[in-house]
Amino acid sequence: MALISTTAKPEPASGANAMTRLEEAFADEMEQVNALIIERMQSPVGMIPDLAAHLVSAGGKRLRPLITLASADLAGYQGDAHFKLAATVEFIHSATLLHDDIVDGSPMRRGKPAANTVWGNAASVLVGDFLFARAFSLMVETGRLRVLDILAGASSIIAEGEVRQLAAIANMDMSEPEYMQIIEAKTAELFASAARVSAVIADLPERQEVALDRYGRELGLAFQLVDDALDYAGNAKKLGKAVGDDFREGKITMPVAKAMLTANATEQEFWTDVFSKTERTKSDLDKAMKLISSHNAVQLTLDQADLHIQNAKAALQYFEPGKTRTLLCDVCDFVLERSF
Amino acid sequence: MALISTTAKPEPASGANAMTRLEEAFADEMEQVNALIIERMQSPVGMIPDLAAHLVSAGGKRLRPLITLASADLAGYQGDAHFKLAATVEFIHSATLLHDDIVDGSPMRRGKPAANTVWGNAASVLVGDFLFARAFSLMVETGRLRVLDILAGASSIIAEGEVRQLAAIANMDMSEPEYMQIIEAKTAELFASAARVSAVIADLPERQEVALDRYGRELGLAFQLVDDALDYAGNAKKLGKAVGDDFREGKITMPVAKAMLTANATEQEFWTDVFSKTERTKSDLDKAMKLISSHNAVQLTLDQADLHIQNAKAALQYFEPGKTRTLLCDVCDFVLERSF
Repeated sequence: MALISTTAKPEPASGANAMTRLEEAFADEMEQVNALIIERMQSPVGMIPDLAAHLVSAGGKRLRPLITLASADLAGYQGDAHFKLAATVEFIHSATLLHDDIVDGSPMRRGKPAANTVWGNAASVLVGDFLFARAFSLMVETGRLRVLDILAGASSIIAEGEVRQLAAIANMDMSEPEYMQIIEAKTAELFASAARVSAVIADLPERQEVALDRYGRELGLAFQLVDDALDYAGNAKKLGKAVGDDFREGKITMPVAKAMLTANATEQEFWTDVFSKTERTKSDLDKAMKLISSHNAVQLTLDQADLHIQNAKAALQYFEPGKTRTLLCDVCDFVLERSF
Repeated sequence: MALISTTAKPEPASGANAMTRLEEAFADEMEQVNALIIERMQSPVGMIPDLAAHLVSAGGKRLRPLITLASADLAGYQGDAHFKLAATVEFIHSATLLHDDIVDGSPMRRGKPAANTVWGNAASVLVGDFLFARAFSLMVETGRLRVLDILAGASSIIAEGEVRQLAAIANMDMSEPEYMQIIEAKTAELFASAARVSAVIADLPERQEVALDRYGRELGLAFQLVDDALDYAGNAKKLGKAVGDDFREGKITMPVAKAMLTANATEQEFWTDVFSKTERTKSDLDKAMKLISSHNAVQLTLDQADLHIQNAKAALQYFEPGKTRTLLCDVCDFVLERSF
């Protein structure tokens, strides 16, 4: 593999392999982050590392910590606090995943039974709390108060976004701007913070700190919109979860919002009825998929994601061209084009 | 009321009114803490303040934040960071209560339906996360890294203790020292931190910082042991929860451990059988109460709590005598003698 990749011609800068190139460029640094993650999820209470390992060490794209590492490099940071911050970001992400699976009642996560399916809700709640607390201990060690302020603030915004989504279940009046606010809070805030904290530790001027925040935020918005689209168009095996999960959970996401926007009266009635039921059947999903397809709603969602991808790329203009800037730019295409 | 309390003769320094005297002595400061608590649990997402208010502003003894305030006074602290730390401690406590109720499946808390009964598990998980994140933001504002380190560390120790208790359900081999480790983690660690952080912000010498930690830790151990005793001997109405909750949940607490220690073969068999069942009946509880009574296990538990109360009082010897030291000493008796 190494032979092939070093002797092959440079591949085109498309999204298809941008994630791999980002991973390879920061493989050594990521190894240190992974070691830190393993070290800090240890506990004499065996259930904790068992459950945490199920989630933290097994799979996942590690996109958020990679953004922290790449942002630190882009910022010219010379110290080693970025390792701890990358691990912090992944811990916060893992804690929210554990708690989300309880909220959603999801049986699967990344192609494996979700932790709550294996260990139960009680353990998932508590191990999530443990990871969250360890995340805070890790970032306290960096000794940078502004970083702590940013990540603690992000954590409450994430929880707010999740509660807001929960409260909005079956709310047919939810507007697109309101939906965008929810995903900005629940998903994009952590991407924004993951990038921004690297600017802080590198003591970048404010405009570059804001630019990195903007980069992460727009990328996060696109990431979530693509996630929403994949839930109605993805390949279950590649996704590692069932297609139609959002629909079954009664979550009105962007593809549904787009399909409703141009729905006729009969279709509107279908949407209202189907989301006011406590459960949605396979035939409900089939009908929903058909409407989403006829309204081109998946593509419209991806088009909107593309706008945010363009914003993310534009934010990088505050930095000098270079290898890392190119990688961060190209990974935007990966986020847009990914099928899992 | 004010007239009565100022004209009445000084009441004897017993536990019965020690809590009231502590509350009165720090009423003005506590008002500021309460205002901060209300302010920081606000969110544009209405479900958050609604659910948080159900728990945070309605009842509860506020013992932990009072310990922070009184410790700051004992330490001669002159600033205002103790308000934020007292609110932080109450937020961490509230977050763990919300999550505990999910873990335990408790229908009641402080005489009212538990939050998860009213809003559901999903909302309780997320609002707990929100309060936890807000706790961190609050303490970050104090700008004291050692305080952050102590409270972040305490938070992961609390979660560890809870997981350990969860894993120990129906474990008949659990030893008393192991049980004491669990309650030190899940309960005493927060009491210890609540007192210790005040020593840190007051820049006390290490021996006094350790003494305040010791005071809170021993008080917390006693508090939990009394809680355990009340679950088998308390008055359900005063307690605000059902007697026998721990038993029904399959938690082996100190009264059961004490009764098992001197159990004959038949009794031993009962305990093993009853805790290996998935559910315990009313008649199981009656039998358990009878055995606990015949082995004097509630009194033995309270005797052990008393030992920790003596340790807590001894730790106060590192401070000069005075009104606040007396209050902190007397509130130990309250913890031991309380019936709710």
